[in-house]
Amino acid sequence: FGSMQNVNKVSDVVVFGGTHGNELSGICLVKKWLSGPPLQSATCKVTATLCNPEAIRLCRRYKDCDINRQFTRVDINKVTNAEENLPYEVKRAKELFSQYSDYSGERIILDLHNTTANVKLCLIVEKPTDYFALHMCRYIQQHFSADFCHILLQGKSYGDVRYIAKHGIGIEVGPQPHGVLRADIFDLQEKAVKLSLAFLDKFNNGDIFNPCEIVTYTQFKKVDFPRDHEGNIAGMIHLDLQDRDWQSVSGSSMVFRTFQGDNVTLEDVVKIPDEIKDLVYPVFVNEASYYEKDLAFWLTKKATVALPILKLNVLH
Amino acid sequence: FGSMQNVNKVSDVVVFGGTHGNELSGICLVKKWLSGPPLQSATCKVTATLCNPEAIRLCRRYKDCDINRQFTRVDINKVTNAEENLPYEVKRAKELFSQYSDYSGERIILDLHNTTANVKLCLIVEKPTDYFALHMCRYIQQHFSADFCHILLQGKSYGDVRYIAKHGIGIEVGPQPHGVLRADIFDLQEKAVKLSLAFLDKFNNGDIFNPCEIVTYTQFKKVDFPRDHEGNIAGMIHLDLQDRDWQSVSGSSMVFRTFQGDNVTLEDVVKIPDEIKDLVYPVFVNEASYYEKDLAFWLTKKATVALPILKLNVLH
Ligand SMILES: [Zn+2]
Ligand SMILES: [Zn+2]
Repeated sequence: FGSMQNVNKVSDVVVFGGTHGNELSGICLVKKWLSGPPLQSATCKVTATLCNPEAIRLCRRYKDCDINRQFTRVDINKVTNAEENLPYEVKRAKELFSQYSDYSGERIILDLHNTTANVKLCLIVEKPTDYFALHMCRYIQQHFSADFCHILLQGKSYGDVRYIAKHGIGIEVGPQPHGVLRADIFDLQEKAVKLSLAFLDKFNNGDIFNPCEIVTYTQFKKVDFPRDHEGNIAGMIHLDLQDRDWQSVSGSSMVFRTFQGDNVTLEDVVKIPDEIKDLVYPVFVNEASYYEKDLAFWLTKKATVALPILKLNVLH
Repeated sequence: FGSMQNVNKVSDVVVFGGTHGNELSGICLVKKWLSGPPLQSATCKVTATLCNPEAIRLCRRYKDCDINRQFTRVDINKVTNAEENLPYEVKRAKELFSQYSDYSGERIILDLHNTTANVKLCLIVEKPTDYFALHMCRYIQQHFSADFCHILLQGKSYGDVRYIAKHGIGIEVGPQPHGVLRADIFDLQEKAVKLSLAFLDKFNNGDIFNPCEIVTYTQFKKVDFPRDHEGNIAGMIHLDLQDRDWQSVSGSSMVFRTFQGDNVTLEDVVKIPDEIKDLVYPVFVNEASYYEKDLAFWLTKKATVALPILKLNVLH
């Protein structure tokens, strides 16, 4: 198995809602916990907080730029002092970074998101070697029916808010339109957060999480919409692909239909290497906020990851 | 039947997409008709046009204010010449008004919209006495299965873009998240537009539309979300009501659930007069853009409207 990891008792959990200001279920859950009985764990301190208050006020994804791409920059570049000219989200990221990043104990970040795509419950982890986070995901996943909860590996860091702690997961639930709060999606996200805390309590209490294999999906390729020569979108997600996140696609799968009615297959737009052709799964199909990122859906590669045994102070 | 109406040959149709800049199916249909084979009718001139280009560029409902509330103001107040300070949408409304409102022939407006609510196909007409528009709606409705297409009466003018012609209908389709284009919703809206033109061709060619009764739903009451003492939303649409547009509700129907888990019934928030208690139907349940308007859903009253015979030059 992978290299030894720090597996001390987790003493602190920070739950971020509103990293994107129009993703209402995380925002409203945090507001619920702040205004009523707080979110609690038996074994660690839990803080629920709003990540991007100005974007929340505007009910937009962001004010100046996407805050979930800023944390690497804050860390690495240290940001100059000419703060007047900084985009709001860079200032806010810097603020959160200085508030949370030098914690001496073991801290976990839960970052709550919504998507317009039909992902159901999607748990996002950066690296396939973050066995602690992956054990947490597996624990959550086991409380849902088959094919309802999937584990997505980013493959690389985007500079998201989870970067300010050693371990973190993104809890992405959908489909929900941005700017709308659905009770079913609210309940699903709350259940996922409570299962995360239940896992941490079990871990802190010395429970053993046995070696096991999990199925993961690693993002490897962005696919953009068909476009005209001026760069405008000229087609849409094909009915065969719409709402079919986590369902296998092949080169001959219809993925777009142009406005004029022509079908476009996956192999028309992407060259899939032969060695992975049976392992390709689309996700974040028709996510609203990705239109401006020239992204109609992500392709992921399905893979099994072996997790080592996990218990307090033991991971080998 | 109602008073005699002008039923001359229709010579002109204007189809507006993008009255709201993040409602993508109307926007993309208009772009399709502008860049490829144009939308056409056998008997009248058809113009497809983008209503609010700046909002479309931003992919937001509006830039400064909702353009679909400005047309009355433009007409009645004539707007001062201090145009520098006018909100973008007032300027654009004024521009459209001067471009379209003094047409001497018979013009029809089709105004294309999307909603996040599960309305399927909703045809919007201002008045129950606009028999011409209601005959058009009935013609469209007959091409869909029962309960798929409903006719909504606004009861009063909102100053929308349909105001610039004598007859107009709003073609509202959903559910679709704002900022997302779904192929099924695109197809549905295109079908409704083409049926509208087919109706106009039949009418212009002298076809007779017989007296008949239609079922309509008239908006009579806005219902707001539960709120805390600071005015923040403190609850959400109940699972019993979510996605149940056009389904009858009574005083004991659950309509909200607070974040803390308490159910709220319709009679907790609205007093329904006894004489209409069996006729109350919610619509636009959980429409994203209504959150800022303090509006969780509309209540409508179901009613039958008798339509007189309609043919070219004859309505009595
Ligand atoms: Zn997000
Ligand atoms: Zn609209």
